[in-house]
Amino acid sequence: MTKIAILGGTGYTACELIKILLRHPHAEIVAVTSRDQKTPAVAESHPSLAGRINLRLEPFDVDKLIAKGVECVFGCLPHGASMDAIQLLLLRGLRVIDLSADYRLRDANVYAQWYGESHHDLANLARAIYGLPEIYGDEIRSAQLIANPGCYPQTGILGLAPLVAGKYVKLKDIIIDSKSGVSGAGRTPKPNTHFPECNESVVAYNVGQHRHTPEIEQTLSDVAGEPVEVIFTPHLIPMDRGIFTTIYATPHRALTEAQLFDVYRAYYANAPFVRVTKEIPATKDSVHTNFIDMTVRVVRGRIVVLVAEDNLMRGASGVAVQNFNRMYGYDEKLALW
Amino acid sequence: MTKIAILGGTGYTACELIKILLRHPHAEIVAVTSRDQKTPAVAESHPSLAGRINLRLEPFDVDKLIAKGVECVFGCLPHGASMDAIQLLLLRGLRVIDLSADYRLRDANVYAQWYGESHHDLANLARAIYGLPEIYGDEIRSAQLIANPGCYPQTGILGLAPLVAGKYVKLKDIIIDSKSGVSGAGRTPKPNTHFPECNESVVAYNVGQHRHTPEIEQTLSDVAGEPVEVIFTPHLIPMDRGIFTTIYATPHRALTEAQLFDVYRAYYANAPFVRVTKEIPATKDSVHTNFIDMTVRVVRGRIVVLVAEDNLMRGASGVAVQNFNRMYGYDEKLALW
Amino acid sequence: MTKIAILGGTGYTACELIKILLRHPHAEIVAVTSRDQKTPAVAESHPSLAGRINLRLEPFDVDKLIAKGVECVFGCLPHGASMDAIQLLLLRGLRVIDLSADYRLRDANVYAQWYGESHHDLANLARAIYGLPEIYGDEIRSAQLIANPGCYPQTGILGLAPLVAGKYVKLKDIIIDSKSGVSGAGRTPKPNTHFPECNESVVAYNVGQHRHTPEIEQTLSDVAGEPVEVIFTPHLIPMDRGIFTTIYATPHRALTEAQLFDVYRAYYANAPFVRVTKEIPATKDSVHTNFIDMTVRVVRGRIVVLVAEDNLMRGASGVAVQNFNRMYGYDEKLALW
Amino acid sequence: MTKIAILGGTGYTACELIKILLRHPHAEIVAVTSRDQKTPAVAESHPSLAGRINLRLEPFDVDKLIAKGVECVFGCLPHGASMDAIQLLLLRGLRVIDLSADYRLRDANVYAQWYGESHHDLANLARAIYGLPEIYGDEIRSAQLIANPGCYPQTGILGLAPLVAGKYVKLKDIIIDSKSGVSGAGRTPKPNTHFPECNESVVAYNVGQHRHTPEIEQTLSDVAGEPVEVIFTPHLIPMDRGIFTTIYATPHRALTEAQLFDVYRAYYANAPFVRVTKEIPATKDSVHTNFIDMTVRVVRGRIVVLVAEDNLMRGASGVAVQNFNRMYGYDEKLALW
Repeated sequence: MTKIAILGGTGYTACELIKILLRHPHAEIVAVTSRDQKTPAVAESHPSLAGRINLRLEPFDVDKLIAKGVECVFGCLPHGASMDAIQLLLLRGLRVIDLSADYRLRDANVYAQWYGESHHDLANLARAIYGLPEIYGDEIRSAQLIANPGCYPQTGILGLAPLVAGKYVKLKDIIIDSKSGVSGAGRTPKPNTHFPECNESVVAYNVGQHRHTPEIEQTLSDVAGEPVEVIFTPHLIPMDRGIFTTIYATPHRALTEAQLFDVYRAYYANAPFVRVTKEIPATKDSVHTNFIDMTVRVVRGRIVVLVAEDNLMRGASGVAVQNFNRMYGYDEKLALW
Repeated sequence: MTKIAILGGTGYTACELIKILLRHPHAEIVAVTSRDQKTPAVAESHPSLAGRINLRLEPFDVDKLIAKGVECVFGCLPHGASMDAIQLLLLRGLRVIDLSADYRLRDANVYAQWYGESHHDLANLARAIYGLPEIYGDEIRSAQLIANPGCYPQTGILGLAPLVAGKYVKLKDIIIDSKSGVSGAGRTPKPNTHFPECNESVVAYNVGQHRHTPEIEQTLSDVAGEPVEVIFTPHLIPMDRGIFTTIYATPHRALTEAQLFDVYRAYYANAPFVRVTKEIPATKDSVHTNFIDMTVRVVRGRIVVLVAEDNLMRGASGVAVQNFNRMYGYDEKLALW
Repeated sequence: MTKIAILGGTGYTACELIKILLRHPHAEIVAVTSRDQKTPAVAESHPSLAGRINLRLEPFDVDKLIAKGVECVFGCLPHGASMDAIQLLLLRGLRVIDLSADYRLRDANVYAQWYGESHHDLANLARAIYGLPEIYGDEIRSAQLIANPGCYPQTGILGLAPLVAGKYVKLKDIIIDSKSGVSGAGRTPKPNTHFPECNESVVAYNVGQHRHTPEIEQTLSDVAGEPVEVIFTPHLIPMDRGIFTTIYATPHRALTEAQLFDVYRAYYANAPFVRVTKEIPATKDSVHTNFIDMTVRVVRGRIVVLVAEDNLMRGASGVAVQNFNRMYGYDEKLALW
Repeated sequence: MTKIAILGGTGYTACELIKILLRHPHAEIVAVTSRDQKTPAVAESHPSLAGRINLRLEPFDVDKLIAKGVECVFGCLPHGASMDAIQLLLLRGLRVIDLSADYRLRDANVYAQWYGESHHDLANLARAIYGLPEIYGDEIRSAQLIANPGCYPQTGILGLAPLVAGKYVKLKDIIIDSKSGVSGAGRTPKPNTHFPECNESVVAYNVGQHRHTPEIEQTLSDVAGEPVEVIFTPHLIPMDRGIFTTIYATPHRALTEAQLFDVYRAYYANAPFVRVTKEIPATKDSVHTNFIDMTVRVVRGRIVVLVAEDNLMRGASGVAVQNFNRMYGYDEKLALW
C-alpha cells in the first residue's frame, strides 16, 4: 500500500484523481491539501465524494505529510505555485507527479516566454520526466519527478507520433485543430465559462498562443529527432468533458489508409490505452476512461488523423495514475480499467 | 416615434430588449446607461448587436436623458439600485417600465422581509402598476410606472388565474414546481452557473425561500379577491432559456378536462399571447417568442396545469414591450410577433 | 467467480452493466445475447467497450448458456419479451435479475392495465422479489428471480419510505414531480429524443399515465402496511443521465426539519448507498455512482423531499449489481464504489 | 405583396422560413405543401407556429398554387425530389428559390458523383444562379431559379473569398475545419442524432466525402478565376444551431494581420450581413440572425480565418429571404434585421 498526498484538492483534476485512487488496491490517500484558509471536509468541496472519503482539506506542510508516511505526492496546484511546493517535497526524497505545467518544458526560456514568469526551480526541471507513458515509458519507472502531460498535447502528440517517428510527414506543415469540453478551463467561474455564454456556442480561443503548443513541439521533436513545428488551434465546445483533435499532416510520398493503419497499429501494439479504431471515434466513447482513441484518413493526399480522449481522466488524472502504476511497478492498468 | 432609454444595459434582459425594440416601428433607443466606469460601445458589451446599434454605454444622468428627448425608460438595474434611479425619472415626468423587483410588492414590509432591505420610495410604490397585461391590462394603459413582472411569477399566475378567478380550487393548497434555464440567473459568473457545474445536472434551489413567492401570491390574491398561498419550488435546468412550470391544485368539486379547457379558453379569449394548447407545451416551442403556453390535465382528481414560456422574452423584455405598446396605444403585438 | 449472461445486450442498461461487471472481482461475463439477426462484436454495438470485452452478440439459447456454465442472468430485454425468455431460464434453475418491468407488479391485472397486454408467466410473477435492497434486503438474498426496480420509482419510494413507514404523512396526498435525463428513454431514436427537439427544452410527458406509478404505489403500500396513492409527473430534461425528484407530502402534525433529518438518518443508517445530505443534492453529484442522495425541507407546513440519482447506474444497472452482490453473499458495495 | 408557397413544409428550414416571412411586410405565405399523406395544420407540425399561421399542409399541385396567385416558391424538399417539383414550377413561369442541393453544382457529372444519382433537369441546371448574394449579387436580381447555398459552404466561401479573389494564398493548400450544431442534420431521427448519442460528444463525419466540398470549390474557383481545391472536415457539435469554421490557408508572401483586416473590410464594405470582427466570433453571437461573422489571424506565417454563422437562418432560410429581397427589389435587409 503506497501512501499518497494530493496538493490543491479543490479542483476538477483532484476530484477525478481521488475517484480513481479510491479504486486502487495499492494506494491510500492520507492527505489532501488546499491553500484556502478554511479547511472543510474534502466532501464539502466535492459533494460527489460524500460518504467516500473522510479527510479534511489541510494546509500544505511537508513535515506533516512525511509524518503521515506519504511516499508519493500528486500535485494539482496552478503553475508557479506548483514548483514552490514541489521542490520542498523532492528535497525530502518524496516522489512527485505534478499535474501543473511547471516541469513540462525543458527549456526555462521557453517556459518564461509562454508562461510569463521565470522558472525558479531549474535543478529539478532538468531531472523531470515528461509523463507520457507511450513515449517515455522507461524513464517514468525510475523517475522521482513526473511532469504529467497536458490534455491537448496528448492528443496531438500521440496522434502524430507514428507519422513523425517514421518520418512519413513534413515536420513543419502540421495543423492541430482541437475541440475541448469546458471542464478543461478549470473550476473558477469566468465570463467565458458562464453557462449562458458558452452553452450552445463554439468559439476558438488563444489562436496561435496556447501554452500547449511548445509542449507538443518539444515531445514531437524528441520523437522525430529533429525540430517539429505545429499550428495549434483550440476550441471551446458546450460539453463537460472530452477532447476531439483533428490533425492535418502532409506526407512526403503518397500513403494509403491501409498502410497508415499498419503504421499506427504497430506503433501502439504494446500500448493498452491507445485504441486505433476503424470508425471515427466520438469523444463520448472515451469519456470516463483512460483510453485515447484514434483513426486515420487520407483526403486529397493529405493525412487526417482524428483523436479523442477524456480531458479529465486520460488528459490529466488517469494518465497520472498510469504513471504512478509504472513508477511503483504495478500493473499499468490498475484502477484505470 | 417614442424615444427610449434603457438603464443597466449590460445584462441579458437589456440585450433582449434592444433586439426587440430594434424591430419596433415606433420606438427609437437613444440612450443606454451603465454603472460601469468604462463606457464602451453597447455592441462591445453585447457582440450579437454589432452592426445593429451604434450607441455607447453612458453614465445615468436624468438631464441628459431629457435633453435627448427620452419619453419612456426601461429599467434593467438590480433591485435597490433600480428605485434610486427611477424615482428621479418619475419626478421629471418620464414614464418608466421597471424590470427589477423594486415596485412589484405593494407592501413595503413584505419587500423588506424578502429582499432584506427597507424600501425607500414608498410614494411611487403606491402608484406602481404590476405589468401583467392579461390581469391588469387597463391600469397599464395610463400608468406612469410599471413594475414589470418576474419570469417565474408569470407562469404561476397565468397558469392559475382561471382556476382562482372562478374559485374552482382550494386557495391554500397550491404547489408550483418550476424548471428554468440558466439565463434567469443573470450574467454575472457564479459557482452554480459555471458551465461544468450546472451542465448535465438538475437541482432545486431557494426551496421555500424564493423571492418570487410573494409576487405570485399578491397577484393571485387580487384575482381571487381573497388570500392565496402557494408552495413554490424553482429548479435550475441545463439550458439557456425557457421555464416549464408544473402546477398542482385541488378542486373543490370534480371537474373534467373538457370543462377546464373551456374555463381556460374563455379566460384567455382576448389574450393574444396566451396559447391554451391541447398537447403539453415544450419550452422549445415558446423560446424567442412572447407567448405563454399552457395546458391542463386531471390526475386522480387533482388539477395539473403545465405552463411554458421564454424567461428572457415573455418573462422579462417581451412583456415589457407588450406593456410599452399598451401604454402608448400601439398594437399590443407590435415588434413581438 | 460467478459466470454471467446478459440478455438484450445492445441497449444503454446492458452497456452500463457490462462496465460495472468488468470491475467485479467475482463475476465473469461469458455471454451477451441479442435478438438482432446480425451478431457483431459487443464492442461494435458499444464502441466505448472496445478493447475491454471480446464477446460477440449471440442469439438467446438456454442450452448454450448452461453449457457455458452461466449461473446468473441479467435481463435487459423490453417488457413482454423479457418474461418469454426468463421463464425458460428459471425452469432450468438459473437465477435471474430482470431489468424489465415484467415481474415488478404483483397483481397481473394491474400489469395488464398499465402495460396493455396480459401477463403470461403468473407462476414466476408470484415468486419474484422486487429488487430494492433498502426495502426488501433480506428477501433478495435467497431469491431466484429479482424484479429490478424502475429508475423513477427508486427516487419516489426511497424519498418517501421514512415518512410512510412512520405514518408521518397523509398517504393519499403525495405529489412526485420528477425530472429525468434522456437516456431513460432508451437507445431507439424517436422524434421526442431527436437532439434538436429535446435539447434546450423541458416538457412533461405521460402526465398521470406513467407506468412507474403503480410500481411506486405497490412498494410504498408495503412499507406503510396500507394503500398509498401518488400523483407522479415525469419531465424530460436536456441531459444524458440523472433524475431529480421533488416530493410534496402533507404531515399529519407539524414536524421540524431537524426531526425529519433524524427520521431519515435513522431509517437509512445501514444503507451504504443512501446519502442523506444537508445541502440539496444536484444530480451531477450522483451520476456514474450507485448513490441515491436526498434531503428534506419544510415549506409552509408541507414536507418537501428532494432526491437525486443516476438513472442508468443506481436507477438500473448499479442496483442490479447491488442485488447480485446480495444474492451471492458478496460485499454489497463490490464493483459499485 | 408577393404571394409565396413553401414546398416541403415539415422540416426545420421550412419552419425557420415561415417565421422570417411572417415578419416580412411584402410577403404573404399562401400555401405550404407536404408529401405526407396526412395534411394537418402547419402549426401541428410546428407547435412553435401555433396562433401565428392558419394554413394546412397540402399536397403539391402546381395548378392550385397558381390559382392562389403564388409568384415565388421556396423549395425545402430533399435533393432529387426537389428538381422533380421545381421544373414544373419553372415551366409555368414561377420564380423559385430552391434550398435543396439540386441546382447548386453546375456540372451534372459532379452532381452524379457526389449525390449518387444522375441529374434529370439539365436545362434548368444551366440557368440556375447560386444564391450567395455577396458573390453573385447582380445575377440574383434577375434570376428565375436560385440555388440557395448550403450552410457549410457559405462559411468556407465567404471566409476565403477575399484571399482567393486577391490571389493572396495558394489555391490548392486550403483546409476547412467546420463545427456544426445538430439541426443541420435535419428533422428525421437517426442514431447519430439521438440525444444520448450526440449530446456531450464531438465527432467528425464524412471526412473527405462531404457533399458540400464541390460546392465550396466551384464558387471559390469562380472567385479566383482558376481551380481551387479544399480539404473539408465537418464535425457534429452538441448544440442546436450554429456553425464555426476554422480555415487554414498558406499565403504566397507574408501578410500582417492589419493588412488582412484591410483586405477583408474592403471586400465586404457593401455587404450588410458580413461582420468582420476584431474578436473571434462565437457562434452564439450570430444565431437567430442572418449575419456571418469572421476574423483573421496569422499563426507561424499561415493565415487562420475564423467564421461563424447560424446554419438555419444565415445558412439556409435567412439567405433565402435575402435572395428573395434582391429578386423583388426590396431592401436586402427586410425581415432579416
